[in-house]
Amino acid sequence: MSMRMRESYHVQLDAIMVSLVGLTETVADAVGRTTKALLNADLQMAERVISDDAIIDNAHDDIEQRCFSLLARQAPVAGELRTIVAALRMVNAMGRMGDLAAHIAKIARLRYPDSAVPNALHENFVTMARLSESMVRAAAASLRDRNVSNAARMAEEDEEMDELRAAQFRVLLGEEWNEGVEKAVDAALLGRYYERIADHAVNISSRLIYLSTGEAPEGENWPRA
Amino acid sequence: MSMRMRESYHVQLDAIMVSLVGLTETVADAVGRTTKALLNADLQMAERVISDDAIIDNAHDDIEQRCFSLLARQAPVAGELRTIVAALRMVNAMGRMGDLAAHIAKIARLRYPDSAVPNALHENFVTMARLSESMVRAAAASLRDRNVSNAARMAEEDEEMDELRAAQFRVLLGEEWNEGVEKAVDAALLGRYYERIADHAVNISSRLIYLSTGEAPEGENWPRA
Repeated sequence: MSMRMRESYHVQLDAIMVSLVGLTETVADAVGRTTKALLNADLQMAERVISDDAIIDNAHDDIEQRCFSLLARQAPVAGELRTIVAALRMVNAMGRMGDLAAHIAKIARLRYPDSAVPNALHENFVTMARLSESMVRAAAASLRDRNVSNAARMAEEDEEMDELRAAQFRVLLGEEWNEGVEKAVDAALLGRYYERIADHAVNISSRLIYLSTGEAPEGENWPRA
Repeated sequence: MSMRMRESYHVQLDAIMVSLVGLTETVADAVGRTTKALLNADLQMAERVISDDAIIDNAHDDIEQRCFSLLARQAPVAGELRTIVAALRMVNAMGRMGDLAAHIAKIARLRYPDSAVPNALHENFVTMARLSESMVRAAAASLRDRNVSNAARMAEEDEEMDELRAAQFRVLLGEEWNEGVEKAVDAALLGRYYERIADHAVNISSRLIYLSTGEAPEGENWPRA
């Protein structure tokens, strides 16, 4: 491959990474909006998150296609390959996070004008939603700055998510629960969706560690999805 | 690349596809066992599914590593690249299905010696579990035979899964529900896990269509996870 072709290859790969950062920010916005829709029983906001998921899907398809075409057109060297494979993984995580934000918005829409969030778990969901959005924003920042120094913090936040989820179950299944079956079912699924959004953010961060170091991060968070 | 190197490349790629078929069967077995654990409140079976998830994870890591090393060591041509990228996607889907089977087993274990499945939904879960296992087996068969002719049937089965899930919500949130909050929360999550297993089976099938035809299948099932 000529120097000029190699340069153009890098330009295209860098452009893919820039698009990925943009998509991660878009996903973080979707998580923020779906939380507003959920906590304020805001129907318009819920509709917006649901219809805007098509934007995330299109960006996903576009980035995926560009990765495939780079892979197919020119033989990448090892470091480039690792980047493209990581980009394919990350873009899929983003597509899934967008779907999960839309799932949350659909529950908000279904219960409108009521709030889908139980009173007894309002504070828990405020914290959980804020945390998951901030984890997606941290993933975007790591990706933008190619900086994996916040990985340890990400692991802590992931533990905090686990604790918030456990606390939800204690409330839902506790003696004092008096908000009925529907609210409990909604809360169990909403908690699952936010937890999965956080998992994907952790996975993106793990992929970046792998990209920077060639080593899988220690512990059980090595991503599979 | 010499003819001999090219041949060895194909041998390794074929070996990866054989391992993938084996892993898909292992995952289908896990789905079958977790269903037995769940429907019969069988603690030993639940423990087995949970500990055997490590086998699935190890097979996942092994196949992923072999894909990476093929990608990195020798420059694959377009068709090979497409196969390796698809294999990476599929192996991740299998890792996730294994995790979901373990999630189901953990709920079964948590409720032992009681059954986690509500009486009112016993038949629904029998059908849903059988269907999701059969979808994973169909994905394994398609992968083994490189035959995508069952894709239309897979789409039908996916619709049937959606209907079964909708029926669950009608029962859980209906007037006649009298099995309490805990059973309802368990059922909502169990239904979600089986639904996701089926989604992954559909995604594997879609990947195979892409591999055979180079075209994304029509409709909304183009996989993102």
